[in-house]
Amino acid sequence: MNVLVLNPNTSTDVTDLLIAAGRAVAGAGTTLVPATAAYGVPYIATRAEAQIGGAIVLEMLAERHAEVDAAIVAAFGDPGLHGARELFDIPVIGLAEAAMLTACMLGRRFAIVTFADALGPWYEDCVAVNGLAGRCAGVRTLDGSFRTLSTVQGEKEGLLVDLALRAVEEDEADVIILGGAPLAGLAGRVADRVPVPIVDPVAAAVKQAEALVALSPRKATAGTFRRPAAKTATGLPDALARRIQHRD
Amino acid sequence: MNVLVLNPNTSTDVTDLLIAAGRAVAGAGTTLVPATAAYGVPYIATRAEAQIGGAIVLEMLAERHAEVDAAIVAAFGDPGLHGARELFDIPVIGLAEAAMLTACMLGRRFAIVTFADALGPWYEDCVAVNGLAGRCAGVRTLDGSFRTLSTVQGEKEGLLVDLALRAVEEDEADVIILGGAPLAGLAGRVADRVPVPIVDPVAAAVKQAEALVALSPRKATAGTFRRPAAKTATGLPDALARRIQHRD
Amino acid sequence: MNVLVLNPNTSTDVTDLLIAAGRAVAGAGTTLVPATAAYGVPYIATRAEAQIGGAIVLEMLAERHAEVDAAIVAAFGDPGLHGARELFDIPVIGLAEAAMLTACMLGRRFAIVTFADALGPWYEDCVAVNGLAGRCAGVRTLDGSFRTLSTVQGEKEGLLVDLALRAVEEDEADVIILGGAPLAGLAGRVADRVPVPIVDPVAAAVKQAEALVALSPRKATAGTFRRPAAKTATGLPDALARRIQHRD
Amino acid sequence: MNVLVLNPNTSTDVTDLLIAAGRAVAGAGTTLVPATAAYGVPYIATRAEAQIGGAIVLEMLAERHAEVDAAIVAAFGDPGLHGARELFDIPVIGLAEAAMLTACMLGRRFAIVTFADALGPWYEDCVAVNGLAGRCAGVRTLDGSFRTLSTVQGEKEGLLVDLALRAVEEDEADVIILGGAPLAGLAGRVADRVPVPIVDPVAAAVKQAEALVALSPRKATAGTFRRPAAKTATGLPDALARRIQHRD
Amino acid sequence: MNVLVLNPNTSTDVTDLLIAAGRAVAGAGTTLVPATAAYGVPYIATRAEAQIGGAIVLEMLAERHAEVDAAIVAAFGDPGLHGARELFDIPVIGLAEAAMLTACMLGRRFAIVTFADALGPWYEDCVAVNGLAGRCAGVRTLDGSFRTLSTVQGEKEGLLVDLALRAVEEDEADVIILGGAPLAGLAGRVADRVPVPIVDPVAAAVKQAEALVALSPRKATAGTFRRPAAKTATGLPDALARRIQHRD
Amino acid sequence: MNVLVLNPNTSTDVTDLLIAAGRAVAGAGTTLVPATAAYGVPYIATRAEAQIGGAIVLEMLAERHAEVDAAIVAAFGDPGLHGARELFDIPVIGLAEAAMLTACMLGRRFAIVTFADALGPWYEDCVAVNGLAGRCAGVRTLDGSFRTLSTVQGEKEGLLVDLALRAVEEDEADVIILGGAPLAGLAGRVADRVPVPIVDPVAAAVKQAEALVALSPRKATAGTFRRPAAKTATGLPDALARRIQHRD
Repeated sequence: MNVLVLNPNTSTDVTDLLIAAGRAVAGAGTTLVPATAAYGVPYIATRAEAQIGGAIVLEMLAERHAEVDAAIVAAFGDPGLHGARELFDIPVIGLAEAAMLTACMLGRRFAIVTFADALGPWYEDCVAVNGLAGRCAGVRTLDGSFRTLSTVQGEKEGLLVDLALRAVEEDEADVIILGGAPLAGLAGRVADRVPVPIVDPVAAAVKQAEALVALSPRKATAGTFRRPAAKTATGLPDALARRIQHRD
Repeated sequence: MNVLVLNPNTSTDVTDLLIAAGRAVAGAGTTLVPATAAYGVPYIATRAEAQIGGAIVLEMLAERHAEVDAAIVAAFGDPGLHGARELFDIPVIGLAEAAMLTACMLGRRFAIVTFADALGPWYEDCVAVNGLAGRCAGVRTLDGSFRTLSTVQGEKEGLLVDLALRAVEEDEADVIILGGAPLAGLAGRVADRVPVPIVDPVAAAVKQAEALVALSPRKATAGTFRRPAAKTATGLPDALARRIQHRD
Repeated sequence: MNVLVLNPNTSTDVTDLLIAAGRAVAGAGTTLVPATAAYGVPYIATRAEAQIGGAIVLEMLAERHAEVDAAIVAAFGDPGLHGARELFDIPVIGLAEAAMLTACMLGRRFAIVTFADALGPWYEDCVAVNGLAGRCAGVRTLDGSFRTLSTVQGEKEGLLVDLALRAVEEDEADVIILGGAPLAGLAGRVADRVPVPIVDPVAAAVKQAEALVALSPRKATAGTFRRPAAKTATGLPDALARRIQHRD
Repeated sequence: MNVLVLNPNTSTDVTDLLIAAGRAVAGAGTTLVPATAAYGVPYIATRAEAQIGGAIVLEMLAERHAEVDAAIVAAFGDPGLHGARELFDIPVIGLAEAAMLTACMLGRRFAIVTFADALGPWYEDCVAVNGLAGRCAGVRTLDGSFRTLSTVQGEKEGLLVDLALRAVEEDEADVIILGGAPLAGLAGRVADRVPVPIVDPVAAAVKQAEALVALSPRKATAGTFRRPAAKTATGLPDALARRIQHRD
Repeated sequence: MNVLVLNPNTSTDVTDLLIAAGRAVAGAGTTLVPATAAYGVPYIATRAEAQIGGAIVLEMLAERHAEVDAAIVAAFGDPGLHGARELFDIPVIGLAEAAMLTACMLGRRFAIVTFADALGPWYEDCVAVNGLAGRCAGVRTLDGSFRTLSTVQGEKEGLLVDLALRAVEEDEADVIILGGAPLAGLAGRVADRVPVPIVDPVAAAVKQAEALVALSPRKATAGTFRRPAAKTATGLPDALARRIQHRD
Repeated sequence: MNVLVLNPNTSTDVTDLLIAAGRAVAGAGTTLVPATAAYGVPYIATRAEAQIGGAIVLEMLAERHAEVDAAIVAAFGDPGLHGARELFDIPVIGLAEAAMLTACMLGRRFAIVTFADALGPWYEDCVAVNGLAGRCAGVRTLDGSFRTLSTVQGEKEGLLVDLALRAVEEDEADVIILGGAPLAGLAGRVADRVPVPIVDPVAAAVKQAEALVALSPRKATAGTFRRPAAKTATGLPDALARRIQHRD
């Protein structure tokens, strides 16, 4: 099966990290198809950027959905995920969603640990939107700047492990989620330094995408995720307009 | 004071309805400044459309925010509102938010009544995001199609009153909110046929905008609504890119 | 319009503070009408005092409601508010309610900061009764005694600013509410020392009263805030008995 | 032990019903001491009346608390209960509170069934204030008027049984609470017509009062139910003023 | 009346503590009947042990229920309680349940304090299952090992008082529950060192058992606690099989 | 990989259904290992039976865990799941848990539809324990008896489809879960008659087991799912005793 790994950021080196971490757990028959946003910001970190990035997700999916069996919205925080699930027929999974639901099978409460405090409020909103606040022990973030997105996981490795340990000890987290696409692949390297299971969101998302494709759920034609009725659209990118107008 | 009434839909006749209903309650010194989306869909009704429309809100605000004292996101469901509140310095208020908070001063629980069932799920998500599910008696929607957006309030007047009556009797609503920008102005005409207070969202939003301007709250430089740090942005509309890059 | 500022405490100097802070934001056509309780306690701080003070609110409103267009229950904690909303036809707004709902338009979560720890439990109950616990980052109170009610805002100014800063940093509050009628007017003086918006409850309440009067909601004749049916009443203060008996 | 059965209504015939139903379950050493409000309304049914009645509860307790080992606030809805618990040293229990907590030991969710729809909103507020909404299957009320308070339980017996049956079948209630002091004693007569346990609030309250007296909990000197510090009080009934001023 | 005090642990010395603490508050006509598990673990402290211990509770009750008027599941955490309430006709009460519901009549929020941190997660689950998370200020546990179960209350007395004081000061607990059967009887000895009411779970459970017997609620034949229909059972202990098969 | 499909009921024909439905979606390298309880009841339907069945799950896992890479507790309602997750080192997944978390990726709210109303309360408890009440649109059950467990899915197929349709239309379910092990395999046959995705719990559980094995999470040595410390155990089945005593 083909699974689109859709990075709604413009950072191709982060896409590379995502693909590498995803391939490490993908099944034999799974091909991960990378896609990086052609415009936008290098990494989404705030509500405003998620609003814009989510619209880019819809545009990218409108262009690529027919080529793949499932898609992963590969920014933790899942910009545009629910709109995508409504608009397209293939399974679409978010990094945060997949990580949180997977974590729920490993413990009572998970903590999300990430590298930049700008990400905190957005991640907390994401937990709430998923109705999982009761399963979340907290979001812990590092202060301070970092050199580059693609190297931040190495630069901050020790600090992130410390933060994870504090989440276990002080917040009673049963599971740690390393949030943020730039941390893709880190979980494996630090697992033996943290005394509870660690979830790598892109790894979780790849397995959940494979699971959904295997279960082959039908596209809803009723309920709140049915495809919206055809509608006039003016001035939108062509592929997206066609999807909204039911010309695709 | 100048208050931008920002319709993120392309329907100028709905903008006219909004301005008329807003002017009916605006204070002597308030000028309502209309703005209608130059592209997008005629009316936002689903999560996908709200994702796209919310990005349009940010773009429009980037172009106009310096001209006004406050802005109203004039689509019930408030697309882009939280991103706007983060990115800009002026107060930004949503129709749904203003209507719900105003309704909280008039009763224990409000019901939202609207003209198209496609709107239901989006409105329910909006109630939840505002943390007001405990104050909401339900969302009730009409089945069936309608002729035009700008005349739907007349066409469906009787049915909407019936729906409001059922919300009062069966759902124990203390207050009715007539959701959806195309219903702007209807509340006043039907108030004597519904035995509880009715809130017109645009009227509520105009008064809340005036209230916030009078209170002149400072822009946050801390907390989750501080302005995001300057960031590289590629390929975004010019005004929006300048705002993100701190060149505005 | 005339707005009754009803202080259910016996402290006329606090009434003066409330009127001054309210006038600073009131519209051109708004007259604030002061009223101070003729009996009771100097300031309500506990559940028992709120029980008694709330009954005094109803008695005072029974005497004055016909003279005004709206009323503000001017003790943070809103004693008697819901009973008043039920019993009278004019809009009645509480200081805490108005402050919290206004704060919801300025951030995700507000913190309430006040000058005496005796007030904490009552304020927390008030947040819960309003269904806003999910929007509240916490209630922070000062230890220690103070000299006089009418001067406590000057005496404790520095400590209150410190408490607000801790609420922002440690509790992730996006907005600060300075709770307690004796702090009326302080918000304006300290706004530049706190990095998030500060809400002055009486200022918020005045603007919300003006908003409701402009929206002119009808009195409910159904739902849980309809006026109670006429009932026998024995030994109650005359105006209140008349209102309960529908002789007013 | 002596347990004050404090009826904050002026209806002495309801006090008689309460005492009779309480005595049927009271222990050998328990004396129930009746008290009926000297002023107020015949039966509290709304928020406004509960506000006034709760202040009367405090006044009556100030006069009588030294004579008894515990007190029951004998109006379902528990007016003034939390203030009383704060202000006095003896255990004070509410009819609704005792009934709901007792019901929690008999099933997962209880329904409250009562004789007048005016009581519904107040009872729902009471459930919420106790943090027991998750244990409540609903509040069901009869429409229509009734002849007298002291005979309503006979007049409506069949209708109340029907309502209880619907709460079991449609709302999945595991336990029925017959709310409202005028229904005291009815539970026993109809128990064999309802297929789940029925709780009589005054019976439950008497047993809970006995339980608390036997456990002899200390009066809090910390926490939110410590006695408030002495305070000036002007114009209040004498016994209540003395209690507030720490002269009692 | 006869009340079975069913210790699902194998520690008879803890049963002795429970009986002694229960007798101190039991009414004149109450006989406490001790029962200790013949197999299992010395004290249940985890979810797995509670799963096993709960099945032992059902087996023990199947053997003894006809001899008594009510039963207490005498392990804090209440293993098997809801199954027992379903399967048997007599009232069955849990230590944790009785302690928490009793505490609700003594303050707004209770804290649970216990002697071993292994117990924390199980107790937290128990609070949640009872729907009382909103009334719980937290669970605080001691680190470190202890010598014997039956002497741990003496060995840790000072540390437990310190923990209770921190729960009052830092967590705003209004009431302290000393959780864990091995602490039975300690509450009375330390009450004057803790400034809020302390609840001894077995004492609370005895009084609640007496209350329920006095109220004589009928066994449900509808709702979720009706007795399950007769069912085939293979290889289960004889008394339990008979009860499941309706041969008892 | 080897995945134990552990049926805690004594019905081997249901085990056969589970294995068949699981194999239909299992990956190429996955072997499903069947296990059926040697004693207990034919199908768990109530809290008491789940209490007993959960202990059987622990006993069966103690005997088999070393042979497999993961285990599925194959009764919807997940008896013993959390204890198993604590006690053993391999991933353990429940049918209900897997179905609900999978459903969360397919819509906002799922409904659980099943064949016997006796199952309703247990399933509702299960939703609550997982903290997913906010994602659940309801549990709908059929009245009436059925012939045999292994043929109930054919006998009730039409009625179950009708129930699913009502859950979509009346409860606004976005996803249907066919709860109950005896329905294993039915989802595929009826998918084209229900307008939203349908989840087959055993299919979901097999894919989630495969996902967890691929992610190879470490066993927690901290947090609430760490293995309990070694403990004395008397009279328990041998394999289980050895696991509790750390001799395994």
